[in-house]
Amino acid sequence: MVELVIMRHGQSLANQQHLFTGWSDVALTATGLTQAHEAGSRIAATGLTFQQVHTSMLKRAIMTANIVLDEIGQNDLPMIKTWRLNERHYGALRGQNKDVVKQRVGAAQLHEWRRSFTTVPPLLAKPDVARRYAQIGVTEPRGESLKMAYDRLMPYWQDHIAPGLRAGHNQLVVAHGSTLRALIKYLERISDDAIDQVEVPNGKPIWYQIDSDFEIVAKRVLD
Amino acid sequence: MVELVIMRHGQSLANQQHLFTGWSDVALTATGLTQAHEAGSRIAATGLTFQQVHTSMLKRAIMTANIVLDEIGQNDLPMIKTWRLNERHYGALRGQNKDVVKQRVGAAQLHEWRRSFTTVPPLLAKPDVARRYAQIGVTEPRGESLKMAYDRLMPYWQDHIAPGLRAGHNQLVVAHGSTLRALIKYLERISDDAIDQVEVPNGKPIWYQIDSDFEIVAKRVLD
Repeated sequence: MVELVIMRHGQSLANQQHLFTGWSDVALTATGLTQAHEAGSRIAATGLTFQQVHTSMLKRAIMTANIVLDEIGQNDLPMIKTWRLNERHYGALRGQNKDVVKQRVGAAQLHEWRRSFTTVPPLLAKPDVARRYAQIGVTEPRGESLKMAYDRLMPYWQDHIAPGLRAGHNQLVVAHGSTLRALIKYLERISDDAIDQVEVPNGKPIWYQIDSDFEIVAKRVLD
Repeated sequence: MVELVIMRHGQSLANQQHLFTGWSDVALTATGLTQAHEAGSRIAATGLTFQQVHTSMLKRAIMTANIVLDEIGQNDLPMIKTWRLNERHYGALRGQNKDVVKQRVGAAQLHEWRRSFTTVPPLLAKPDVARRYAQIGVTEPRGESLKMAYDRLMPYWQDHIAPGLRAGHNQLVVAHGSTLRALIKYLERISDDAIDQVEVPNGKPIWYQIDSDFEIVAKRVLD
């Protein structure tokens, strides 16, 4: 048996203001910091130890992961920060207020942009070029469907998280609403249609127990 | 030209209480947190960007590094946490008050234990076995001279920091008083005798510029 805990970062400034965020690098709010500490103490209460932590290149996830590691007394763990766990890129919706967008395009279109597996948001005319991605040779997307985020996440799962689990090493993933929806879709074999019902709240760790056949035998939200 | 910044963590609880610390994993004080933020903003003022951050497996260094990365807006950087950058292991002196030890053994013996290159402190009868080192296959030392710390640090310098610098990638090292003394000894070619004069204060980044022949051409303390 091996353990996988996945969790979404604490509330960010953009969450608080109902903005589409994606690859924008926004900080945690005071509430988000508290959520991170609480999530950490809930994980600590399980007594779980991990061998690796995986997070994105966005500070709302990195800072959440740092706080969780401190709460569980495992600051020393190797932490890999990968763009493949970055939030789905929301394209030209990035920075826009969800309520304003809803008024403009209607609830159905908004829901489709937010929850559909394959719908691509309005794209940016050209990609942003931030230092952090340029220096590792990654071209920023102009926008991503959940499927596009899923497809760029999977190589990381296959090459880094799954091999750790197969070696019997417990893994912690601190990421984002959409990339965790993609991961849950894979782990729980959720259909393209049914994934629109899955939401991942801020700062609530999900604990999976995985057996030697790599099947999930238990799932618990640490709430 | 490539840039190397090395710095010691902010004040720890053990620093505040004048205790020998070594591999004991103590937190930063409020002063230490402030020093970390100030050091970060001093590095930020230089405009330097880094490609990698190296720190120890001890939380006083890791938390300092996390704070510095946030202050310089480079949370995304790969951070490697290695036992090879851990503080020198103070053996049986660990946890003892320096003033009390001084009264017991005298100022000369205390100075020798603290500042000599080769003197080994009183050893622990048997090594501690913490999860973090056991799970990566590292046997904890029973005590280390500065030379012993130097010798286990050098492979990390050779294999991870120096190749990055040679590739033209700026490197940030957040470590400890003794391991930074060891690194400074190497970088500045300080003799075994003269190293007893070198002290590294908490939270004061040292900025080296290194040329294409791998010679230091400038050094500045960001104070």
